[in-house]
Amino acid sequence: MVSVLSKTLCFGCEVQQVEHESAALGGLKAVFSVIVPPCLRSEGETITPLLYYLSGLTCTDQNFIQKAGACRAAAQHGVLIVAPDTSPRGAGVPGEDDAYDFGTGAGFYVNATAEAYRKHYRMYDYVTRELPQVVHEMFPVPAAAAAAAASSPKRPSSIFGHSMGGHGALVCALRNPGVYRSVSAFAPIAHPSACPWGQKAFQGYLGSVEAGRAEYDATELVRDAQRVRQCGWDTILIDQGAEDNFLHAGQLRPEDFVQAAESAGQSVTLRYQPGYDHSYFFIQTFVDAHIAFHAKRLHAQ
Amino acid sequence: MVSVLSKTLCFGCEVQQVEHESAALGGLKAVFSVIVPPCLRSEGETITPLLYYLSGLTCTDQNFIQKAGACRAAAQHGVLIVAPDTSPRGAGVPGEDDAYDFGTGAGFYVNATAEAYRKHYRMYDYVTRELPQVVHEMFPVPAAAAAAAASSPKRPSSIFGHSMGGHGALVCALRNPGVYRSVSAFAPIAHPSACPWGQKAFQGYLGSVEAGRAEYDATELVRDAQRVRQCGWDTILIDQGAEDNFLHAGQLRPEDFVQAAESAGQSVTLRYQPGYDHSYFFIQTFVDAHIAFHAKRLHAQ
Repeated sequence: MVSVLSKTLCFGCEVQQVEHESAALGGLKAVFSVIVPPCLRSEGETITPLLYYLSGLTCTDQNFIQKAGACRAAAQHGVLIVAPDTSPRGAGVPGEDDAYDFGTGAGFYVNATAEAYRKHYRMYDYVTRELPQVVHEMFPVPAAAAAAAASSPKRPSSIFGHSMGGHGALVCALRNPGVYRSVSAFAPIAHPSACPWGQKAFQGYLGSVEAGRAEYDATELVRDAQRVRQCGWDTILIDQGAEDNFLHAGQLRPEDFVQAAESAGQSVTLRYQPGYDHSYFFIQTFVDAHIAFHAKRLHAQ
Repeated sequence: MVSVLSKTLCFGCEVQQVEHESAALGGLKAVFSVIVPPCLRSEGETITPLLYYLSGLTCTDQNFIQKAGACRAAAQHGVLIVAPDTSPRGAGVPGEDDAYDFGTGAGFYVNATAEAYRKHYRMYDYVTRELPQVVHEMFPVPAAAAAAAASSPKRPSSIFGHSMGGHGALVCALRNPGVYRSVSAFAPIAHPSACPWGQKAFQGYLGSVEAGRAEYDATELVRDAQRVRQCGWDTILIDQGAEDNFLHAGQLRPEDFVQAAESAGQSVTLRYQPGYDHSYFFIQTFVDAHIAFHAKRLHAQ
């Protein structure tokens, strides 16, 4: 059962906040937001594609929706955008609210295996399995479009994200070749097993950094030439603020990712943006370019 | 003494949060934000003009800065935008934090005369007298531009705002003919002496609704044909969401304002925007149009 908590209009898009009971998150209520472009209300044979946005540490579904200014480009390019929360809420694990970089608001888009977390902290399954199903049921492809579609009656999908959500986007995309047409990121935690944030998350959710390195580290996943061939992306787009404190603190490590990708033959378009930091002011500035990047690939036949 | 609390880049603009000790607010610290467009850093004989934005109930300087998406248009049109807070903070008046629509976050852009409030709650003087002086000292007009300017060496100024801040913008502009080249508003409290929000504010800050009607009510001020002639505006722009709950509750009353303005020969461009509500999603959608409206008038010779 999905319930729409709020609806408001922005650049002609309907912005909805949605709540549902999540099996992936162990039966907790989950909240996400969607930006529904005007074209979706009148889609005939042209399927409006879907773009997932994953947020960073401490965020809810609201940060991107309120601060990124994405509705203009969503309307212009005809893309349905879905922004989930960053963790389960109210799992009741002792200490889950104690730190900004672990637990509530910091699910790290993994399926936890550690005893205390494994029931609820399953954001990887939530984002890649349950959320697409919920969105598909809320916004089914119209019959005419489904009939006209050469292959799947599902909406073509891409994924992007910021910081922890950039990590999440890269990992979800790399682990599911063929599912996401394109992937991009703002200042992603690109090599989590080699930075403090990632190490803490992998240790806490998975029991060891090693377990995270093997399963949820974009730099390790992208080394696999067969995997990237299956993904079939012409390039991966990454924007990185050159004045981002977390870059200089070694939390992001985009160069590691680029090096690993290139060793596997995967092109990465890494752009350092002079003067920009890690905030939503940075995202707001470049969000149109990312939405255009995905729209071009999502609308391609 | 002005101290810059933070600086960040957005669409090439520098977004600064500034703190200073405010004489107008009885010696309290005041915080405002500025959006500094790229052209200001290189202005020669062309003076970058100034646009004030006044926020609504419950807001700080941050709501507009984070949620309105104004930097794109500020950069494009070459306008310096200044967004003050909505009240003094920490005045220590008993009960000032009890309601969302009176006291902290709800200064209503008046100079209070009621005993408990008159020392600190002087947002009218703050916005129209002290803040321009502080901004002028922070961003002095370069010598070359001052020499080339036919008249005043100050930056040409305009003002706009939302809800309570729309009321503030209209009142500040109408009370100071010749000071603001143009004025516009999103969903302003356009006839405060005739609505619950305004009546509560006038009663509390000024001792009576009647006192507010005489001094701080845009609909009453705009009835004065001599005043509007002195203001010299071709039109006043107001955007109003047609699905705004506060409109339907009678808090805004834009029609009263239009009727009074027309009786005095002042044109008002009142646009009802179908489907839009009272939120920053509405402001975000139309902020470019407002900035363009002011820029056209500010850049005119």
